[in-house]
Amino acid sequence: MPPFGFLHMRVWASLFGQLLRSPRAVCIREVHFHSQGTRDLSPQQMVVREKILDMVVGCFKRHGAKRLDTPAFELKEMLTEKYGEDSGLIYDLKDQGGELLSLRYDLTVPFARYLAMNKVKKMKRYHVGKVWRRESPTIVQGRYREFCQCDFDIAGQFDPMIPDAECLKIMCEILSGLQLGDFIIKVNDRRVLDGMFAVCGVPESKFHAICSLIDKLDKISWKDVRHEMVAKKGLAPEVADRIGDYVQCHGGVSLIEQMFQDPRLSQNKQALDGLGDLKLLFEYLTLFGIAEKISFDLSLARGLDYYTGVIYEAVLLQTPAQAQESFNVGSVAAGGRYDKLVGMFDPKGHKVPCVGLSIGVERIFSIVEQRMKTFGQKIRTTETQVFVATPQKNFLHERLKLIAELWDAGIKAELLYKNNPKLLTQLHYCEDMGIPLVVIIGEQEMKEGIIKLRSVASREEVAIKRENLVAEIQKRLSES
Amino acid sequence: MPPFGFLHMRVWASLFGQLLRSPRAVCIREVHFHSQGTRDLSPQQMVVREKILDMVVGCFKRHGAKRLDTPAFELKEMLTEKYGEDSGLIYDLKDQGGELLSLRYDLTVPFARYLAMNKVKKMKRYHVGKVWRRESPTIVQGRYREFCQCDFDIAGQFDPMIPDAECLKIMCEILSGLQLGDFIIKVNDRRVLDGMFAVCGVPESKFHAICSLIDKLDKISWKDVRHEMVAKKGLAPEVADRIGDYVQCHGGVSLIEQMFQDPRLSQNKQALDGLGDLKLLFEYLTLFGIAEKISFDLSLARGLDYYTGVIYEAVLLQTPAQAQESFNVGSVAAGGRYDKLVGMFDPKGHKVPCVGLSIGVERIFSIVEQRMKTFGQKIRTTETQVFVATPQKNFLHERLKLIAELWDAGIKAELLYKNNPKLLTQLHYCEDMGIPLVVIIGEQEMKEGIIKLRSVASREEVAIKRENLVAEIQKRLSES
Repeated sequence: MPPFGFLHMRVWASLFGQLLRSPRAVCIREVHFHSQGTRDLSPQQMVVREKILDMVVGCFKRHGAKRLDTPAFELKEMLTEKYGEDSGLIYDLKDQGGELLSLRYDLTVPFARYLAMNKVKKMKRYHVGKVWRRESPTIVQGRYREFCQCDFDIAGQFDPMIPDAECLKIMCEILSGLQLGDFIIKVNDRRVLDGMFAVCGVPESKFHAICSLIDKLDKISWKDVRHEMVAKKGLAPEVADRIGDYVQCHGGVSLIEQMFQDPRLSQNKQALDGLGDLKLLFEYLTLFGIAEKISFDLSLARGLDYYTGVIYEAVLLQTPAQAQESFNVGSVAAGGRYDKLVGMFDPKGHKVPCVGLSIGVERIFSIVEQRMKTFGQKIRTTETQVFVATPQKNFLHERLKLIAELWDAGIKAELLYKNNPKLLTQLHYCEDMGIPLVVIIGEQEMKEGIIKLRSVASREEVAIKRENLVAEIQKRLSES
Repeated sequence: MPPFGFLHMRVWASLFGQLLRSPRAVCIREVHFHSQGTRDLSPQQMVVREKILDMVVGCFKRHGAKRLDTPAFELKEMLTEKYGEDSGLIYDLKDQGGELLSLRYDLTVPFARYLAMNKVKKMKRYHVGKVWRRESPTIVQGRYREFCQCDFDIAGQFDPMIPDAECLKIMCEILSGLQLGDFIIKVNDRRVLDGMFAVCGVPESKFHAICSLIDKLDKISWKDVRHEMVAKKGLAPEVADRIGDYVQCHGGVSLIEQMFQDPRLSQNKQALDGLGDLKLLFEYLTLFGIAEKISFDLSLARGLDYYTGVIYEAVLLQTPAQAQESFNVGSVAAGGRYDKLVGMFDPKGHKVPCVGLSIGVERIFSIVEQRMKTFGQKIRTTETQVFVATPQKNFLHERLKLIAELWDAGIKAELLYKNNPKLLTQLHYCEDMGIPLVVIIGEQEMKEGIIKLRSVASREEVAIKRENLVAEIQKRLSES
């Protein structure tokens, strides 16, 4: 298998060559932005998008995933109590009779609903699809109210941490493959977080709220988070400070060992379970050769309610210059373990343990588009291989017969929709569109039973017997 | 280019071999059908779907189209007065503050809105995406409230009938390529219809309503349509009878000539314009070699408001046995010319003439799925090439190191997520999933620095030096 699916290596190289540079500003002024917070995707954007999606899907297939699709809308009740504070961002459909419906908010909840509904106990699936969120659109960061998600999940009861490690391997393969610059994946465990809250003295009823506040640490400072904990959530200042000591910790396996010895944390069963799994996870990550990309980070919380175990989030690393500009590209991939979500959809509450990841492709599209603009790269938006031209008037019939022959042979071909186009106009069209070959037919050629084949790049023309045309074109295309 | 995109020819052949037979019942009992009229698509369905979509998109690209994407929802006002009587089927979003929004009903109106909004005067684009309609779902015919459309359109002012002929050529290429059995494309022109109504004595205010009735002729008999015309729409019986004489006519170029001579129709300027274009169209269709697939059919009306010129609809032909069972597979592709739609979105009313087509992929999916069920065909839902197995306990670490090496080399590989799986379980998994190769590692192999490579089909095993494994696998895969 070529590493980038069906893409021609040269195309890919020309598209991604500049990605070897580190990311700069992600802000894109979108001409196609709509007042409702969505946007059209132009042919140029679609080309970039499809190449990125092909790579992502290629990786998912490399890991043996099946593809699934679910509808854009779900029964409203399916989505309630799954997203915590973010539930207000769900788009509802108007009540036009029948069930109350909502647009899906992510691809994870529909997957869990699918597993429960069909009593599937084991499945490795990927899903590429749009999701919708009523956020105030911050276009600067490439966030829209409609956006694409690429999810990979492993459902089933397996030996601990093997699927979890594979999810992290997949994230590494995709981020390395896309050459977005250096990155790190932060890892934590919900049980370690809950244990940490418990030993710091947070009342259990406030775990969710405090967890959501910790999740803001990538956007606002610890000082501000601490203030909210004390002033808004009513935490005692010393409790907040104990949390503060923990959330500053990040490191590798040695930090896990350190936390095992931590006088408070080591007293908490949940925390020890989480730490034990993290230790095993790092063992597998080392075997996969990616341990140095992973950082155990006690400040990682992840906003969503449904996580129950390991959680992770990949961020692109900034160059010193970017850090100075306090430039933040944010998370580009994330996920975790959610062992209880499927049970919420099952009438008898049967659980199916799951772990998965979501690639933040919109963020990645923005980065790639921005770079291509910066470097003024021209993208071919069609794949046309041959243009059918004539220098003479009244040759439409011949052009139509000829192009039908090319199409029927599977050759990608175009002509101008004019009875009598000028030759120069036709050749300019080829140069503009990057079409490599032109077949030229005229009176003289007709008489001699030949046709001219012209290379647009070299401007060289050769005469070919009419009946050999298709074979000759196919030969040239297979060589290029 | 291989004719079926990136698909391996054998996969395609095994999937579509049986399509050479003519279509039978299209009814599919969907286990995944939801009360809201939508459904999940299982991995098996997704495989069939993707293969069909790849063929369709391959054809669109062969004709030089660019890909475009638009959001799932549009401003509600954009969709009003575009769909005639079908407007009641539009899904509205709940008013949660901000603009009033509706889910798109088709891909044509968003395309026209895109052209007007971006002042694009010329574009050949395709669009594959979901649309939503609040119809009472008739699952028997493969109709759901959410379904996929594949559209190809040519926008711009060109010499007459060249793009129109290309649209019909594309429909023929796709339907032939999918081997769905024999088909015919009915062609008519809205101006011929309007002229026909005028000369028959229909008041102009009733053109739309009568046109919608004519559109029902593929579902109900002329007798019933005539009854509705007279009883519900207040048409004089003799007017209805005159229409009845026309709508029974269908044929080739000779019918166009006959209509040119028709004493009533030949008095109507609009009808003559339409007939003139149809004559030119057939000239081009003959050059494309597809004229025998096309039937000028005066009963073809097409429901949508926005068509202004040529209209067409492809239907699969029934075998005599099917006709006896009064079995109707209905239209599988359709389209037409809409020269005024873009102008409706432009503040100054600037028009961009357009012509296009939509492939009824859902209908096609249903037919293909049904056939595969009938023939009990097993479909591979993953592309895994190699399975990593061991006959011994405590070999997880070795398996993980080995599989990471395969993934990093771009090889599609899987293992069982168990510390100590049984060898038989592992080999059964390969047979179930159709994985062709197994690498087997154990204590003895480790000592000797080798690895066993097993062909699942032949059960032959060979020993390979550990360091040659990736190269050997790649060699085998390239040969198969």
